Amino acid sequence: MTRSKEEPVEVRGPWYAHGLRVPLFEVDLGQGVYHGNYFHLFEMGREAFFRALGYPYRLFMAEGLHLTVGSLQCRYVKSLHYDDLIEVQTAVCRIGRRSLSLAHRIQRVGSGQRPETTTEGVLHFVCVQSGTPVPLPERFTEKLRLWMDTEDGPF
Amino acid sequence: MTRSKEEPVEVRGPWYAHGLRVPLFEVDLGQGVYHGNYFHLFEMGREAFFRALGYPYRLFMAEGLHLTVGSLQCRYVKSLHYDDLIEVQTAVCRIGRRSLSLAHRIQRVGSGQRPETTTEGVLHFVCVQSGTPVPLPERFTEKLRLWMDTEDGPF
Amino acid sequence: MTRSKEEPVEVRGPWYAHGLRVPLFEVDLGQGVYHGNYFHLFEMGREAFFRALGYPYRLFMAEGLHLTVGSLQCRYVKSLHYDDLIEVQTAVCRIGRRSLSLAHRIQRVGSGQRPETTTEGVLHFVCVQSGTPVPLPERFTEKLRLWMDTEDGPF
Amino acid sequence: MTRSKEEPVEVRGPWYAHGLRVPLFEVDLGQGVYHGNYFHLFEMGREAFFRALGYPYRLFMAEGLHLTVGSLQCRYVKSLHYDDLIEVQTAVCRIGRRSLSLAHRIQRVGSGQRPETTTEGVLHFVCVQSGTPVPLPERFTEKLRLWMDTEDGPF
Repeated sequence: MTRSKEEPVEVRGPWYAHGLRVPLFEVDLGQGVYHGNYFHLFEMGREAFFRALGYPYRLFMAEGLHLTVGSLQCRYVKSLHYDDLIEVQTAVCRIGRRSLSLAHRIQRVGSGQRPETTTEGVLHFVCVQSGTPVPLPERFTEKLRLWMDTEDGPF
Repeated sequence: MTRSKEEPVEVRGPWYAHGLRVPLFEVDLGQGVYHGNYFHLFEMGREAFFRALGYPYRLFMAEGLHLTVGSLQCRYVKSLHYDDLIEVQTAVCRIGRRSLSLAHRIQRVGSGQRPETTTEGVLHFVCVQSGTPVPLPERFTEKLRLWMDTEDGPF
Repeated sequence: MTRSKEEPVEVRGPWYAHGLRVPLFEVDLGQGVYHGNYFHLFEMGREAFFRALGYPYRLFMAEGLHLTVGSLQCRYVKSLHYDDLIEVQTAVCRIGRRSLSLAHRIQRVGSGQRPETTTEGVLHFVCVQSGTPVPLPERFTEKLRLWMDTEDGPF
Repeated sequence: MTRSKEEPVEVRGPWYAHGLRVPLFEVDLGQGVYHGNYFHLFEMGREAFFRALGYPYRLFMAEGLHLTVGSLQCRYVKSLHYDDLIEVQTAVCRIGRRSLSLAHRIQRVGSGQRPETTTEGVLHFVCVQSGTPVPLPERFTEKLRLWMDTEDGPF
């Protein structure tokens, strides 16, 4: 069992932003998104990021690969509510041979107000095939590096 | 944005164990529990713990209080699969005036095999009323401290 | 307890179509969307329909109103899979004073193939305020009727 | 698209009852269980029923079989709330060669009050292997018929 010590996460390269609205079915009886459901929102943003990179997650699955979550951490700064207009942002923290760390950040972007960061998370993935860690697809990491080298993103 | 540095989590007092089976609806297309759904399992264990303490979460809600998750971290050591027999264990890390940190640990407990730890998490809660942090109920923290002072738990 | 006898559902007016991709987190271990999660997809389509009408569901909630599901039925003709490109279509079956019946239909719309209907459902809603049935907002039913009178939809 | 006409569902044999409490994560912002999540509760009851029969669903999966939902209907008589003590009841409607219809009924069973039926549903399953309908396992249907012939259930 381990404990987090708060240190700034180094993000390398730009953030990719994906806009959406908070669905009703993600919200719990406290009127905010259930803490485990923020990972749905992160997933929506990550999927959009991979697609924009030109390597949709569907290509992983076509080769029998999965990006399994090995560990994660999440900070809930402010609650998200039903129908909030948000941007789920994704950036790269670290590319390993068989692992990948991504940062996700959610910003509420209401009309006529300054965006505010509501949620921050880091997910550490391992690339697996039939349960065994294997190298990340080369074409995928090439595209990731290309993204990290752009100033504001090529899209 | 912050990053975790792995350090042992200090747990104070015994672990409370709640047994259950992994429901089918928690499992995703990779045949393991979806990473955001482990928080459902933690919740089941936590609810059972509060009930066993004699302070079910229902009492919080009756006073208009919520334990909101401020941050969390989770380590997925091994995947959980459909119908796995597990123990969701809960222990206290830290009691603040308006906050509480709990550790959760899931062990797979198959018949005739040694229990293995599959998942570890720490959740940091803030006690809120109408969105504002307020002190934890005294009767609740008394019961928590009583639990922490027992050797193997009073149950 | 009641049982369905299969009769054609009469839909009045055009269908409203909302395009999306099936998220990974909706898919279960059988590689198809979990039967209870199709209601998330219906909800996405219904929300888009209400928004396009000019009466987003947020307006109901602002007046303390909810559209509660009184009953539903659903037919799963073909499974939906991860990342399928779909259209969630919504049409009006019946407008009551305090109730509303909507039909939802999902079509898979792959590139270069004919759309195929995968799922059909009917949801019967009751408009409630503090748990008591109340009339639907007049401005909402006006917009619904306007929609039903259009040939292909005004959007 | 079809529409239900309300007719009494014929249930053959006794109801199997499985007790549980409504988890917090199933409840939405309207303070009741989200309509698509009642199928989680039905599943918990159905799994317990199959296990009690002596043919847990795990045996289906061990043979590469799935019980896929072909259609369903559900009536929400009263809302279920967080922590409600309930019984999810399951009974057999019809056994086909490759299909099975089950009824589910949820009763709220508070202390010192008469049980009240809150939810009723019927699910029509098809037994499939690699996507193709196949006969139900014989040992399973035998156990089902044995159950249906008992007066109050053998358990």
